[in-house]
Amino acid sequence: MAFSERIARLKSSLIREILAAAQRPEVMSFAGGLPAEPMLPRVEWADMPASMGQYGMSEGEPALREAIAAEARKLGVPCEASQVLIVSGSQQTLDLASKLFIDPGTEVLLEAPTYLAALQAFQLFGADCLTVPLGAEGPDVAALRQRLETSKPAFAYLIPTFQNPSGVRYSEERRDEVAAILDEFGVTLIEDEPYRELVFDAGAATPLVSRLKKASWIYTGTVSKTLLPGLRVGFLIATPDLFPHLLRLKQSADLHTNRIGQWQALQWFGTEAYSGHLAELRDFYRIRRDAMQVQLEQHFGDLAEWNVPQGGLFFWLTLKHKIDTRSLLDQALKQNVAFMPGEPFFTDPDANPGHLRLNFSHVAPERLGEGLRRLAAVIREAQAAQAA
Amino acid sequence: MAFSERIARLKSSLIREILAAAQRPEVMSFAGGLPAEPMLPRVEWADMPASMGQYGMSEGEPALREAIAAEARKLGVPCEASQVLIVSGSQQTLDLASKLFIDPGTEVLLEAPTYLAALQAFQLFGADCLTVPLGAEGPDVAALRQRLETSKPAFAYLIPTFQNPSGVRYSEERRDEVAAILDEFGVTLIEDEPYRELVFDAGAATPLVSRLKKASWIYTGTVSKTLLPGLRVGFLIATPDLFPHLLRLKQSADLHTNRIGQWQALQWFGTEAYSGHLAELRDFYRIRRDAMQVQLEQHFGDLAEWNVPQGGLFFWLTLKHKIDTRSLLDQALKQNVAFMPGEPFFTDPDANPGHLRLNFSHVAPERLGEGLRRLAAVIREAQAAQAA
Repeated sequence: MAFSERIARLKSSLIREILAAAQRPEVMSFAGGLPAEPMLPRVEWADMPASMGQYGMSEGEPALREAIAAEARKLGVPCEASQVLIVSGSQQTLDLASKLFIDPGTEVLLEAPTYLAALQAFQLFGADCLTVPLGAEGPDVAALRQRLETSKPAFAYLIPTFQNPSGVRYSEERRDEVAAILDEFGVTLIEDEPYRELVFDAGAATPLVSRLKKASWIYTGTVSKTLLPGLRVGFLIATPDLFPHLLRLKQSADLHTNRIGQWQALQWFGTEAYSGHLAELRDFYRIRRDAMQVQLEQHFGDLAEWNVPQGGLFFWLTLKHKIDTRSLLDQALKQNVAFMPGEPFFTDPDANPGHLRLNFSHVAPERLGEGLRRLAAVIREAQAAQAA
Repeated sequence: MAFSERIARLKSSLIREILAAAQRPEVMSFAGGLPAEPMLPRVEWADMPASMGQYGMSEGEPALREAIAAEARKLGVPCEASQVLIVSGSQQTLDLASKLFIDPGTEVLLEAPTYLAALQAFQLFGADCLTVPLGAEGPDVAALRQRLETSKPAFAYLIPTFQNPSGVRYSEERRDEVAAILDEFGVTLIEDEPYRELVFDAGAATPLVSRLKKASWIYTGTVSKTLLPGLRVGFLIATPDLFPHLLRLKQSADLHTNRIGQWQALQWFGTEAYSGHLAELRDFYRIRRDAMQVQLEQHFGDLAEWNVPQGGLFFWLTLKHKIDTRSLLDQALKQNVAFMPGEPFFTDPDANPGHLRLNFSHVAPERLGEGLRRLAAVIREAQAAQAA
């Protein structure tokens, strides 16, 4: 069987394999980014017009595009509805952007660490993934400048607001600096913002794309973290030089996004009900974040270091004694605990051992302490074995 | 702006542009493959579990995979549910198969004419598209054999049942012959069957994949033509050597297909209500097909030749005096008539002038005669101008 050369680069989604292994109800899963079941809003379908069953436009439902553009403009993103493309979940934006920009060997610029599924999508298409280190305030600006002085990446893929996996929210100053550098070097920005609305501690953070003066950009969002992931409705907003190509790539990928999910999303965008739901969601997750912090201090205080995330869905732990956390997975699952090893979030996993990404939205609070206690024990045991 | 090299091969979807132009209610559209609005079934959502809002499995809903495998086995397709992948409409299967098999320059084998959107998807990934001519009984077997004696295509993409655009249903004998040749040369088959259930005149036509003894295969179907295209739910069934790769490509493309559409599809698969709906659909479309045939004889009898399609959604006309039918589009749209030119269904459009694909499912019967009368007049006028 002769497959395409890209199949040699096709990796399984580790996170989805862990999620599959964590399906057993007794497993306490810190692995995924799943919304908490009790916070999935009740939705109504009774008023959906029958016409939503027919084929639709590749661009997406016009009213939904208008609503998304209006919300984006409130954030300072300069855009019209004609720049909005509805996609089948944010993951599809990564696929479309890969098709638009990446040939084998094309350089792209990422944060280190970065979103695993983005890394895999870009690598599938053959990208040469350059990185800049991410600190507590955002990317290392000197390293970014140095990268761009010696390379000409097709785009920079950044997650400035509650970055996955690190939880970092770029500071205001760093946002300005990064935008200015991208403008200076004329690098296209893909700004991924699934977590913007999941903010627990106030703080200004207007999108990078609103600060760009010259560079082209794609801004991408989703309803998966705030409404219902099962709808598979996301969106991208793109500068007019990119939009027509992305639209044609969308046509070729799946004709258009399912209209029933689009209709449901439209019932929420810009409504008071949505604002109310988001407020409830923030309160709910803030409590879970705080509970996680308490338990982490108890069980991981001597094992790891971390910053308290001000939004998003994850804690990012750095072990004091580095160990390849992928080697902990089997033992943790035997203890009915799932987590996400940190290594795969780097382009060079073996050179970056000792991080764990822990989700705090999914495990019920009454099981949280027990889950973290077991996970800490697995780590301690492995470190002891390594030291012996 | 540096795009990937594939963007130079990215064509707009002519059919979707025509559909966009044909949105005005006064346009009589023979262009698309849209189901008739009155035949979109009424669907209920009240019983859908809230859990369908959560993330799901990349493979698709287990119960839906079981139901699809059971239906496929009834057709003679040897398969288990583990071989079924739910996709976001059949178009996605073309994208996934392209990713699996096609590098720039990879040879693939198609019918001439073939499905336009498949051709475009394969060409986007850089395929070198070989063709075999399609006759009233199926592909020219001698030409197929000759092709395979000199080339080693990564796959053959065939639509044996009510082919789009030609309406051809391969004969039983031809099905056996084609399957035997694919086995002999070890060529992977992609069998696309969106129209199987839209059969108006009885006739045996078990799938090609059920006749294969050695070759790998992907069998692909959809609920878009029989239930609701707006759900964007299709499926593929693949041999075990191909399935794991397709699953990973699906993960990377959009994580999973929307669950609300999958749940709705599951309410229908294998039920009496679905059988009843399909019977109604066949009766409804048969009447429209027959009405179209009457009007075609009246308005196109001297202009074109065609076979009466025994299923599917299209008549395929061959003009007696060849003319590039793409040149007719603007004038037809001015007359408020839309149709699909035949040239783009060929790998070499300029060498294949003089075909029209006319959909019979969408235009209301009372406007049918007028629409065809206007279209015939546009053709006559263009032919007269050409002769002058």
